[in-house]
Amino acid sequence: MSDPVRSETIAGLDLFRGAASATCADLAETVRVDHHRAGAYVGEQGAKVERAYALSRGSARLIQTGADGGQALIRFLGPGDMFATAALFAQGRFPADIVALEAVVVLSWPREVLFRIMERDPVVAVNVIRILGTRLAQLQERIREKSFLRADQRIALALLRLLDPSGRPQDAAAITIPLRRQDVAEFAGTTLYTASRIIAGWEKSRWLKTTGRRLMVLDPAALRRLAEDGVNGSSAATHAAASR
Amino acid sequence: MSDPVRSETIAGLDLFRGAASATCADLAETVRVDHHRAGAYVGEQGAKVERAYALSRGSARLIQTGADGGQALIRFLGPGDMFATAALFAQGRFPADIVALEAVVVLSWPREVLFRIMERDPVVAVNVIRILGTRLAQLQERIREKSFLRADQRIALALLRLLDPSGRPQDAAAITIPLRRQDVAEFAGTTLYTASRIIAGWEKSRWLKTTGRRLMVLDPAALRRLAEDGVNGSSAATHAAASR
Repeated sequence: MSDPVRSETIAGLDLFRGAASATCADLAETVRVDHHRAGAYVGEQGAKVERAYALSRGSARLIQTGADGGQALIRFLGPGDMFATAALFAQGRFPADIVALEAVVVLSWPREVLFRIMERDPVVAVNVIRILGTRLAQLQERIREKSFLRADQRIALALLRLLDPSGRPQDAAAITIPLRRQDVAEFAGTTLYTASRIIAGWEKSRWLKTTGRRLMVLDPAALRRLAEDGVNGSSAATHAAASR
Repeated sequence: MSDPVRSETIAGLDLFRGAASATCADLAETVRVDHHRAGAYVGEQGAKVERAYALSRGSARLIQTGADGGQALIRFLGPGDMFATAALFAQGRFPADIVALEAVVVLSWPREVLFRIMERDPVVAVNVIRILGTRLAQLQERIREKSFLRADQRIALALLRLLDPSGRPQDAAAITIPLRRQDVAEFAGTTLYTASRIIAGWEKSRWLKTTGRRLMVLDPAALRRLAEDGVNGSSAATHAAASR
């Protein structure tokens, strides 16, 4: 018994984009829906992955802890994002803790269902490969950035990616994930102090605006110029001084 | 007209592991074989990707250059490794320069062939997803390591991964890629000076042996302990002193 609303929700997930309606009906029948509160652990690093997951509402962050105890923020998840699906095929365990940033709705399917669907509807396999390929390219860039870019450039890139994970240029837009400055700092690989100083400078210059826990990017083009060419001041301080 | 040797070679590639023999016969008929000399550019960053590639002999490195001119060694390729295949599905362009480290043989197939084969033989799609998932997990770990581990620990991890990219524990074994210390340094995100000092210390302790351009890891367990627990000296100097 497929639920029409739910089937549409499923068709809207990146993972099932372009899938046949028979596929979405099958997915709607086999889906499990879980609700979690802000702060809840949606997945625990090292736990066995038996299902394919997608976030249908809310946002979360992936935090990886090493044998040495060091933690890093690997990625943010927003509505429509799949997660732990690569692990289902590769290492078989959650690569990180997945922590809800607000109330979230998680859809998931047993491994067998995903495999059956991939056999019948190759577009789903192509979607998985496309999503993983895009993430891989972004991670490769982050590795390079960590060696070569200044903190303000890395933060600009982090914000641009949160604005649009697929990397298309955008006009002024809100980042839909509720973001603490600590999260921005961790994601860009810098300290809270540095991130706060830089973001405050950008707010002064009206590149950004903070409303509650949401960040609104007012001038993505300025962030992009800074990220790519390093222009407009080599630090938030000189930048703030330069912009009245 | 399929060539039996070539068909076996194809079946041995990670990308086509477990594929039906009809699939391998099809691949053997449609394959293009290219030979490149050491130092040749097998792929150029930013060039359009129209084919799926695999290295059948030799080794290469992936070097990514940023808009800022900074370069990073993203990954090494060895015999059997696929490359640029994720780009075929995602961003459509080579994410990095691919430079031969020695004479290489490259096999490749047009996009349409790979898509046709993935539709007919779902194991190929599963292979692509598994390979990308494994790489993604390794890159996530490298991002974390760059923030939290010491240079000697990062170098130990880099060598262990080169020993066996799939991460299975191994006994003493040679790294099959001809490796300059500069490559090890770049891959681990440290300076040539630091990498040379640390590797020299390990050679003294008989953890490693260099023969020509090949590195032989004599004591992978010691490297693993260092990488994971940080034990056996907090630098190559103290380590060398501690081990006669």
